[in-house]
Amino acid sequence: MPERNIRLTLAYDGTDFQGWQVQSNGRTVQRVLQEELARMHGHPVRVQGAGRTDSGVHATGQVANFRTDLDSIPARRYHIALNSYLPADVRALDSAEVPLSFSAKRDARLRAYAYYLSTGEVDLPHQRRYCWRLRFRPDVAALNRLASVLVGARDFSVFSAAGDVNRSKVRRLESAAFHPAGPFLVFRVAASSFLWKMVRSILGTILEVHQNGGGRAEMEAIVDSRDRSRAGATAPALGLFLERVYYDEW
Amino acid sequence: MPERNIRLTLAYDGTDFQGWQVQSNGRTVQRVLQEELARMHGHPVRVQGAGRTDSGVHATGQVANFRTDLDSIPARRYHIALNSYLPADVRALDSAEVPLSFSAKRDARLRAYAYYLSTGEVDLPHQRRYCWRLRFRPDVAALNRLASVLVGARDFSVFSAAGDVNRSKVRRLESAAFHPAGPFLVFRVAASSFLWKMVRSILGTILEVHQNGGGRAEMEAIVDSRDRSRAGATAPALGLFLERVYYDEW
Repeated sequence: MPERNIRLTLAYDGTDFQGWQVQSNGRTVQRVLQEELARMHGHPVRVQGAGRTDSGVHATGQVANFRTDLDSIPARRYHIALNSYLPADVRALDSAEVPLSFSAKRDARLRAYAYYLSTGEVDLPHQRRYCWRLRFRPDVAALNRLASVLVGARDFSVFSAAGDVNRSKVRRLESAAFHPAGPFLVFRVAASSFLWKMVRSILGTILEVHQNGGGRAEMEAIVDSRDRSRAGATAPALGLFLERVYYDEW
Repeated sequence: MPERNIRLTLAYDGTDFQGWQVQSNGRTVQRVLQEELARMHGHPVRVQGAGRTDSGVHATGQVANFRTDLDSIPARRYHIALNSYLPADVRALDSAEVPLSFSAKRDARLRAYAYYLSTGEVDLPHQRRYCWRLRFRPDVAALNRLASVLVGARDFSVFSAAGDVNRSKVRRLESAAFHPAGPFLVFRVAASSFLWKMVRSILGTILEVHQNGGGRAEMEAIVDSRDRSRAGATAPALGLFLERVYYDEW
């Protein structure tokens, strides 16, 4: 049977997952997808994803692909069939046949994340799994002045986590900004790729510099230091969403 | 010490509660509140709520009151102190001192509920606990024509559940209507009081009549029959929110 390459767009509630990537044990999104696709196919199926989201991080637009020899399911309906196998905390939103050469991971040009903060007095029960409540009311313009320091190509060693295996710590941030959105304050950031836990480390650092009354000069000095001990506390996973992955085509 | 009467406004995620009312066993909102208030006070405290929400039903504006002899906490800050004791799935949004004669339950004039439906192809992971996904796309105007039959004072026996202890089944619906709201369709309904599971039974019946192509005449006939076997299947609890309780003052 001719092999097809299927692209999936995925949403998941990261609360009960130990991230995307298959690990020796633990429930991960990649593992659940591979197990359910194996049940559909009767043989192992390998799934590759664009973003290695960490434990507890959510997605509304993760992209993945896998090869299949099943020809009984139209590519455009594959996500519907797959959803009947998947648990309720991960859903395939869309599916399509793509060239055999397509790789969701290698071909991704831009990964866009959003981090939801709330600034209300009370952490509302229906939002508690999906946003981080700040205990102070920040000045959004001041936060954006700090974020603007990070846009462009820089050595982001200061925001890399212990255990990061990337040799080069240089990344190019296309955008990094805070946007008010109803009861939320959303921090949006996009880059072709990120270091491990980089988004949460950036956010934690911006908030800490702001709370300590620091400005652009202090932010510059922290990045230039390349000293991880100068970064702020990493923001918790629960507010972070992989929102969209961009490719040259599609 | 002079006794004060404290009014609370409450939000809760009903998913892991067996409703509001204390039962012989089971985790209920009233029980959790009473237990934590007892810890704060060092003696039992009785809490009365405006709405007896069922197992799995949520609230964003439940109202309750309790008597206290503690004078160390300002009434307007009581909810902040209480929140430090409560679990994350129930939060006090507001607190105030009210006359000793005030009863959240007896004095409530209007109870307003909202039921969230989604009509998308996929049940999104981050909304799955808080809305019910329809497997068809309804005609909102047609739903509203059916809902309008129910507004006003009527005998609602047809929508009462087995085990309902209310003697009179006559209730007066002030409003009942469907409103599109982004990816949701929200059914809002208000009355001074409701029969047990009445909102979910009304919704299930409207949807069933609509799916079977019925109109206002069929809806009228169903209500007039007072025959519970003619009502549609009760809609699941997860989409229902007690949004607000109205009083003569405040």
